[in-house]
Amino acid sequence: TAIPVLDHGFVRVVDYMGDDAAICQAARVSYGKGTKSVQNDEGLIRYLMRHWHSTPFEMCEIKLHVKLPVFVARQWIRHRTANVNEYSARYSILDREFYIPAPEHLAAQSVVNNQGRGDTLSGEDAAKVLEILKADSSRAYDHYAELISEEEGSVGLARELARMNLPANIYTQWYWKVDLHNLLHFLRLRADAHAQYEIRVYADAICNVVADWVPFAFKAFEDYRMGAVSMSVQM
Amino acid sequence: TAIPVLDHGFVRVVDYMGDDAAICQAARVSYGKGTKSVQNDEGLIRYLMRHWHSTPFEMCEIKLHVKLPVFVARQWIRHRTANVNEYSARYSILDREFYIPAPEHLAAQSVVNNQGRGDTLSGEDAAKVLEILKADSSRAYDHYAELISEEEGSVGLARELARMNLPANIYTQWYWKVDLHNLLHFLRLRADAHAQYEIRVYADAICNVVADWVPFAFKAFEDYRMGAVSMSVQM
Amino acid sequence: TAIPVLDHGFVRVVDYMGDDAAICQAARVSYGKGTKSVQNDEGLIRYLMRHWHSTPFEMCEIKLHVKLPVFVARQWIRHRTANVNEYSARYSILDREFYIPAPEHLAAQSVVNNQGRGDTLSGEDAAKVLEILKADSSRAYDHYAELISEEEGSVGLARELARMNLPANIYTQWYWKVDLHNLLHFLRLRADAHAQYEIRVYADAICNVVADWVPFAFKAFEDYRMGAVSMSVQM
Amino acid sequence: TAIPVLDHGFVRVVDYMGDDAAICQAARVSYGKGTKSVQNDEGLIRYLMRHWHSTPFEMCEIKLHVKLPVFVARQWIRHRTANVNEYSARYSILDREFYIPAPEHLAAQSVVNNQGRGDTLSGEDAAKVLEILKADSSRAYDHYAELISEEEGSVGLARELARMNLPANIYTQWYWKVDLHNLLHFLRLRADAHAQYEIRVYADAICNVVADWVPFAFKAFEDYRMGAVSMSVQM
Ligand SMILES: Cc1cc2nc3c(=O)[nH]c(=O)nc-3n(C[C@H](O)[C@H](O)[C@H](O)COP(=O)(O)OP(=O)(O)OC[C@H]3O[C@@H](n4cnc5c(N)ncnc54)[C@H](O)[C@@H]3O)c2cc1C
Ligand SMILES: Cc1cc2nc3c(=O)[nH]c(=O)nc-3n(C[C@H](O)[C@H](O)[C@H](O)COP(=O)(O)OP(=O)(O)OC[C@H]3O[C@@H](n4cnc5c(N)ncnc54)[C@H](O)[C@@H]3O)c2cc1C
Ligand SMILES: Cc1cc2nc3c(=O)[nH]c(=O)nc-3n(C[C@H](O)[C@H](O)[C@H](O)COP(=O)(O)OP(=O)(O)OC[C@H]3O[C@@H](n4cnc5c(N)ncnc54)[C@H](O)[C@@H]3O)c2cc1C
Ligand SMILES: Cc1cc2nc3c(=O)[nH]c(=O)nc-3n(C[C@H](O)[C@H](O)[C@H](O)COP(=O)(O)OP(=O)(O)OC[C@H]3O[C@@H](n4cnc5c(N)ncnc54)[C@H](O)[C@@H]3O)c2cc1C
Repeated sequence: TAIPVLDHGFVRVVDYMGDDAAICQAARVSYGKGTKSVQNDEGLIRYLMRHWHSTPFEMCEIKLHVKLPVFVARQWIRHRTANVNEYSARYSILDREFYIPAPEHLAAQSVVNNQGRGDTLSGEDAAKVLEILKADSSRAYDHYAELISEEEGSVGLARELARMNLPANIYTQWYWKVDLHNLLHFLRLRADAHAQYEIRVYADAICNVVADWVPFAFKAFEDYRMGAVSMSVQM
Repeated sequence: TAIPVLDHGFVRVVDYMGDDAAICQAARVSYGKGTKSVQNDEGLIRYLMRHWHSTPFEMCEIKLHVKLPVFVARQWIRHRTANVNEYSARYSILDREFYIPAPEHLAAQSVVNNQGRGDTLSGEDAAKVLEILKADSSRAYDHYAELISEEEGSVGLARELARMNLPANIYTQWYWKVDLHNLLHFLRLRADAHAQYEIRVYADAICNVVADWVPFAFKAFEDYRMGAVSMSVQM
Repeated sequence: TAIPVLDHGFVRVVDYMGDDAAICQAARVSYGKGTKSVQNDEGLIRYLMRHWHSTPFEMCEIKLHVKLPVFVARQWIRHRTANVNEYSARYSILDREFYIPAPEHLAAQSVVNNQGRGDTLSGEDAAKVLEILKADSSRAYDHYAELISEEEGSVGLARELARMNLPANIYTQWYWKVDLHNLLHFLRLRADAHAQYEIRVYADAICNVVADWVPFAFKAFEDYRMGAVSMSVQM
Repeated sequence: TAIPVLDHGFVRVVDYMGDDAAICQAARVSYGKGTKSVQNDEGLIRYLMRHWHSTPFEMCEIKLHVKLPVFVARQWIRHRTANVNEYSARYSILDREFYIPAPEHLAAQSVVNNQGRGDTLSGEDAAKVLEILKADSSRAYDHYAELISEEEGSVGLARELARMNLPANIYTQWYWKVDLHNLLHFLRLRADAHAQYEIRVYADAICNVVADWVPFAFKAFEDYRMGAVSMSVQM
């Protein structure tokens, strides 16, 4: 059961290991017989989060199958503490699937924040933008298909070369596996208001997955991490 | 069901995620519809191992509970690509458990290889060594217990300080979680003939676990990695 | 002094730390007074390489400034053991610079190896391909410029959105810092015959840099690593 | 010029790469021509720190030579994002140097915080503790020397085995290389009031080094990171 994101993308949980109890189990290895007050699981998890005892959160692992536009993938892959297997455009043929924003997500360059969006475009302007994006994607894919065609009389260009003509809104996919500590770090940066909308919707979808999977850890994360960033931003 | 190692140690599988099929599943993400010859799982895994396509092996994860002497733990922890939670000797009281080698594993300093063992000690020499190790461990623990005692009239030294008196053959324990690629790298270095006997027996125990868990991957590892090292050593 | 690579790219050394002597200095920390035979630097480095004692090689660090096409950057960034700062297309405007292959590097899809190139295209076919690549790049950039234009009456689309229309042969740039051990691992995979030509030329340029910087280490790498891969491939 | 720490330890800067200007230089790669307001270096560094733009801080690297007791080394090595070469007690003979705390740093187990120290011991209690530590260290080293002795008639035990008898207050040494971002993370956790005194003094010494090396970055770290932790602790 994949969670749909954007127009053709999705996030799908392939497998996971551990849960809130596994975080506590690992943390309690440290305390051995020395533990005097047996803390309940939620209290312990909140304590660990508050004090940056991050290693017990690394004891949970999740593997996702994600379909996403290339320009989103380029931001995502910057998070190095994960394991990744991506669709190979050297080996395989990419599908004709491009991200075309919904009109209400087309925004002007922000004037206050150089790295971001400002007001939503007017209907007319949006239409103009969408027309360009659609026409260019379509033409680029036609040319890609033509270049790699194996039919008699075709050029038969190597796939690894032909793909260079495809724009960054084409979709790719990958398996992405990460531990909970580093996933929360990813979510802190990418579910944040400063992140680009197109990666934020993936982060938001994953937030829901995580809230279901490890409810105590996610609640502690919301209380101590998400809040903490905005605080320092206002400083 | 813990696998006993050395005199008081063990390795126990707490949890794992993925198997041989998961390696192939991830590798096949790359190939998409482009795959012409559908390779069988074993063939694909051998191909990946041979060509150092290591990322699909990262898609499997295992979590072990290990009890081991501190001097072994010091070697083990040098492998950074793992997640660890160790028993805290700041917080908790260590048990009176020390590694005392079996007489047949007491060896003289190697004369050919500075970093290693030579011939086994004679019975008399072995007895002398064991006597020292036992007496010193025992005395050190008595002193540790005395220093941290909470009884009336005791010094009541902080645990984090008292432990500094304990020798490196005392046992500690931890949860250790790692992906299969990096676990195999660990095994390559630590199940090797050059590794110290006391860590090698742990590596050997884990080799058996891995051979059961992901038989194709383990076989490929034995054929292409274990062999490859000794080959270059002879060069 | 930047080393030119491809039509608009380059590799430039910004800074580095350590050299062959630094590898030996770190390795000798381990040996302390126990070293009996004082090995010369080259012998020691060859010994370390042969036995996979990789940590002393991590003691050298290099920082490069690289300009490269996006589809090459996508392969390169998969190497996680590096530090990276990339030009931001959310914040800044990309230049009108696209990689257009030299005709002799336009090749057909390999028929024996799905992930690679076969024969070079004929002159006529090459001309056709180049025409498409040039026209599409040019049109895509015109549209990009139009979309982000800040002139009166323009749409003024946010940069982070407009860039999605740009094809993967546009150039980006980054600072890339890495330790020598992981750089050699990168070179082993990317200066290899199986790597795509367009990343291989960067790897080759860096090989020259490394051979100048740490000649003993590079020689040992060539002898024990580069050779070792092709050997196992033939198995 | 080594900075003395504890009774026999030290921290010594071997080499470094980059400075405050290098952080800014890397950060500015992102902004390209798009930068409208040219921020001064200090302002930019504070901005990056506040917003967790951590990658530019990874562009600075430092290599330290550290001599430290084994129980401190065991805490330190848990920081995985560093490069390490440690003195080998398999290969070499450890020196007769043990950490013996100054009397004023001998404290009772804390009653409020299980993982920590409480009041300083009385003069009499301190004397008793020191006597035990000194006698046990001394005896352990005598036995170690006896076990590994190469004299005629000695046991000649392998070094890798004999060291297991040595207590955790013996000194070891290593080369430790790390980037500035991860060094600051280390300092945040280890220069903190909750860290054990014996590692905190090393962290404090390194804080001074960093304040000299990258004054703007260190100031920003003090303002936005050190403060931030204590804040959440009080929550
Ligand atoms: C010819 C070729 C074809 C390829 N085809 C594909 C493909 O079709 N699809 C695809 O997805 N990729 C493909 N790749 C990329 C490949 O999967 C690796 O991502 C890339 O080669 C980087 O290798 P690495 O992981 O060893 O390097 P690094 O990321 O630099 O890592 C070096 C080592 O550090 C350790 N390490 C670093 N980070 C982590 C971490 N987060 N977790 C655990 N261990 C870590 C591991 O031991 C790793 O081996 C291809 C590569 C080559 C050379
Ligand atoms: C006061 C205090 C008490 C402690 N008590 C205990 C205890 O009782 N028991 C115990 O076991 N430990 C204890 N620790 C150690 C603690 O669990 C960490 O191991 C240590 O602080 C290093 O932190 P780190 O993992 O953030 O640092 P690093 O290892 O330097 O990592 C920095 C960041 O890099 C990423 N990273 C690096 N390597 C990996 C990897 N292999 N996989 C995934 N992500 C990675 C993570 O995002 C990580 O946060 C204690 C630490 C402190 C400060
Ligand atoms: C709003 C926003 C804007 C951004 N703008 C830009 C930009 O303009 N240009 C740009 O280049 N990037 C930009 N980035 C990306 C950013 O620089 C990081 O690459 C990305 O956020 C990943 O963060 P990370 O390094 O903490 O995560 P991970 O790579 O997952 O690392 C987590 C932690 O592990 C440790 N770690 C992991 N790998 C290594 C390693 N190889 N060496 C040392 N430590 C390691 C570090 O402690 C690190 O903090 C932006 C990010 C955001 C959220
Ligand atoms: C027989 C033997 C003798 C040894 N003798 C000594 C000795 O005398 N002194 C000594 O200090 N050590 C010694 N070691 C330990 C050795 O130096 C390594 O620390 C240990 O083997 C772990 O190897 P690794 O770094 O490859 O593993 P991991 O730390 O698990 O790393 C796997 C790979 O991931 C990447 N990686 C992970 N973390 C980082 C990081 N922070 N920065 C960059 N890349 C990273 C690297 O590509 C690395 O190869 C010895 C080891 C063996 C097997």
